[in-house]
Amino acid sequence: MSNLQSLFLPAIETELQHQVSRLDGSHTKQFHEMLTYHMGWTGEGAGLSAQGKRLRPVLLLFCCAACGGDWRRALPAAASVELVHNFSLIHDDIQDRSDTRRGRTTLWSKWGMPQGINAGDALFAISNLSLLDLLPATSCETVIKAAEILHTTCLNLTKGQFLDMSFENSSSYGLDDYWAMVGGKTAALFSTACELGSLIGQADTTIQEAYRNFGHYLGLAFQVRDDFLGIWGDVVLTGKSIESDLVTGKLSLPVLFSLEKKSAFAKRWLAGAISADEVAPLSMQLETEGAKLFSQQTEDQLTDLAMQNLRSANPQGDAGQELFDLVSKLVGRQV
Amino acid sequence: MSNLQSLFLPAIETELQHQVSRLDGSHTKQFHEMLTYHMGWTGEGAGLSAQGKRLRPVLLLFCCAACGGDWRRALPAAASVELVHNFSLIHDDIQDRSDTRRGRTTLWSKWGMPQGINAGDALFAISNLSLLDLLPATSCETVIKAAEILHTTCLNLTKGQFLDMSFENSSSYGLDDYWAMVGGKTAALFSTACELGSLIGQADTTIQEAYRNFGHYLGLAFQVRDDFLGIWGDVVLTGKSIESDLVTGKLSLPVLFSLEKKSAFAKRWLAGAISADEVAPLSMQLETEGAKLFSQQTEDQLTDLAMQNLRSANPQGDAGQELFDLVSKLVGRQV
Repeated sequence: MSNLQSLFLPAIETELQHQVSRLDGSHTKQFHEMLTYHMGWTGEGAGLSAQGKRLRPVLLLFCCAACGGDWRRALPAAASVELVHNFSLIHDDIQDRSDTRRGRTTLWSKWGMPQGINAGDALFAISNLSLLDLLPATSCETVIKAAEILHTTCLNLTKGQFLDMSFENSSSYGLDDYWAMVGGKTAALFSTACELGSLIGQADTTIQEAYRNFGHYLGLAFQVRDDFLGIWGDVVLTGKSIESDLVTGKLSLPVLFSLEKKSAFAKRWLAGAISADEVAPLSMQLETEGAKLFSQQTEDQLTDLAMQNLRSANPQGDAGQELFDLVSKLVGRQV
Repeated sequence: MSNLQSLFLPAIETELQHQVSRLDGSHTKQFHEMLTYHMGWTGEGAGLSAQGKRLRPVLLLFCCAACGGDWRRALPAAASVELVHNFSLIHDDIQDRSDTRRGRTTLWSKWGMPQGINAGDALFAISNLSLLDLLPATSCETVIKAAEILHTTCLNLTKGQFLDMSFENSSSYGLDDYWAMVGGKTAALFSTACELGSLIGQADTTIQEAYRNFGHYLGLAFQVRDDFLGIWGDVVLTGKSIESDLVTGKLSLPVLFSLEKKSAFAKRWLAGAISADEVAPLSMQLETEGAKLFSQQTEDQLTDLAMQNLRSANPQGDAGQELFDLVSKLVGRQV
């Protein structure tokens, strides 16, 4: 881990804990516990791996610092985007009926669906409150601008989620809908993290736009990589075939590519659920049809666009260098 | 309906429709439809009775006008509190597994639980965006203050909801927890509506506090009346015994009163579910034990406190008069 990251991560965790402690009251101990469990601080399996990479808040602080801003002032915004991310994970897990996340029992599996929905709502409310803690170090006008960006993103997340869930029940969706969906989901929050960082770092509006676009393309590339790994990732192909996106039926980029080509793979896909035994041959089939190459090329193009925008943003100092390093690390990642 | 209300209600509806139209996009037509259905504008049974009373936004506009403010400027805040209320209804219905609301199929029953959760999240995001539309007519500082009030209330709603759901699975809760729960649920949004109205109406902070307390006690009285009607309401006692809170097992104020007294009713309550046949005799039993009188006296005391605070707020003009009328109308209401 870099020097800056080892400075940022504990500060982010402290800010997150401070924000979530808003739930810690005499009548709401168990409620608070649900959220500290989900955030990876308490309960079975608590620790770094349960907390996730905190990628979005780290990005936000990097962008702020790379604009010459004081990253400590941006901590409430960093916490805010991470809380939005986690609120959406809690609700996603209920919507997908997922029992585990990062190797741990999901919140709703532990405390039931009704409390799970409510715990997600609480994190949403806390993310809103967290942003207001930018005051008084940040001006009223900037906080309002930040709120507008964050709330718009939250709405876009629900649009992306609507499309994602509609995907599952339809075979009439194509690549066009895919980009609308991914633009709302992963890319929206990456983009917002980068824009908020540069806004709080008091960058010019053209620079803010460059950061926003950087985050957008980085988020798209990240998602395309996720889709790639869901089919050709080592973990999936060697041993855990059951975790393959081919088995879960996810309409990911490679699948949509082949569906649009009405290929041999497409015919098999449309015929019904795919079993773990079929994962290896069908992954090969997809590759033969050009879906693997298409995914890699798409990721490369998106990464190039991210890099171009990052260069336009002209990030400064150590934080600037770390942003370039981060892109390289996310591209071609194996997990 | 009063002159002012007949002016306010269509304006509120127009503002709400404008806010919800944020979901109306080429990829999200069906998503938009879910929300216009829930709000009572489209689909089977659409119309005034499906929309509800819009009590919270009406209160907000009354308070604004009674402080000498321009109620039109307060419309985005009025829409915001109504959207928060509706977001919580959508999630409540899922948590309670309720199939109908106001005589219509609930959103989640129509489109499924996953889409229902997401639709509620979307309304939450829209309520946040709506509040920012107070700008530029309202100052940046006031909007920030309004946001702080609204977001804190949203968090309190989730705390109230947590307690409410914990109630259902526990027999160790008492009146103390009841007030914490109701304070977070009904009273919080009433209180916020009144405070926001006076804030946007540019009242002094002591006047704002009086309005906030007015809304708080009005909300508590409203809830106590709801609990009263759930057991002794005409609808429940004559014909729809199945809708009695005694059958649904709700730990309402009269029940908690008797549970704390460890009365004969308490013994029957703790022995297991109550059937529709038992509703009439058990309502009588509760009355004999003093629970009906206690509920009425509690409602009266809370209404007195609401009235005292309203007098301190010294509301002006027609809107002021209407606020006093509204309290009288809500007190002792039969439905």
